[in-house]
Amino acid sequence: MPEYDPDNIFAKLLRGEIPAQRIYEDDATLAFMDIMPRADGHCLVIPKTPCRNLLDASAEQLSAVIATTQRVANAAKAALGATGVTIQQFNETDGGQEVFHLHFHILPRHEGVALRAPGQMGDMEAIAAIAEKIRAELA
Amino acid sequence: MPEYDPDNIFAKLLRGEIPAQRIYEDDATLAFMDIMPRADGHCLVIPKTPCRNLLDASAEQLSAVIATTQRVANAAKAALGATGVTIQQFNETDGGQEVFHLHFHILPRHEGVALRAPGQMGDMEAIAAIAEKIRAELA
Repeated sequence: MPEYDPDNIFAKLLRGEIPAQRIYEDDATLAFMDIMPRADGHCLVIPKTPCRNLLDASAEQLSAVIATTQRVANAAKAALGATGVTIQQFNETDGGQEVFHLHFHILPRHEGVALRAPGQMGDMEAIAAIAEKIRAELA
Repeated sequence: MPEYDPDNIFAKLLRGEIPAQRIYEDDATLAFMDIMPRADGHCLVIPKTPCRNLLDASAEQLSAVIATTQRVANAAKAALGATGVTIQQFNETDGGQEVFHLHFHILPRHEGVALRAPGQMGDMEAIAAIAEKIRAELA
């Protein structure tokens, strides 16, 4: 497996070099909105420390990230009035990974609503409004 | 969210009431082959104690299950000669969940090979042969 690249976009986001709609943060993890949402409320959880994906993460990174994933999934479900949540996590290009810093996708789901196709930029105002609802739920 | 049903099929599997190709087990978790594999080596990781899904799991259940998911994902990737791994975890019917005991899907991936459609029963001899390879990798 290639080494961790400290210039991947989530590393830049963690350093504040690119903007994000942040919704939750603790010592070990950060959650923020996906800018290409496959569902309303699609957000991501990452560790603050470097690892490429699930395959090379430490036990501490995995425990912290899955705990935050649970917390944010419940908040996003409540904020969106969702009736289900799909979690996805991709490892290496052939596993679907595009940014090589460990991340879990949280996708709030509603009955009969399919996921949107990947790779389509979202409406930034709509994403900001949803982020605010999820933050309120977490507060 | 409905209560945990102690007669779901993974609870029965844990009690030994239905068979499974088990590939890994520790005090807190069990990993076994999916009988409707969407990729060669498709397997599942569950906690041995009851919880419905990610949304109601304890911190201890989540930490244990994600640690085993990492261990089995690396072993399955090596055993299958895979170049990626996709992790999926579904919560409630609208989130894609069909068995209401927390489980993580591990899907070894190869370049250019799409996931098979869900819900198709696999070849039990082929699944048993792959399980043996993953067990050997874990040993």
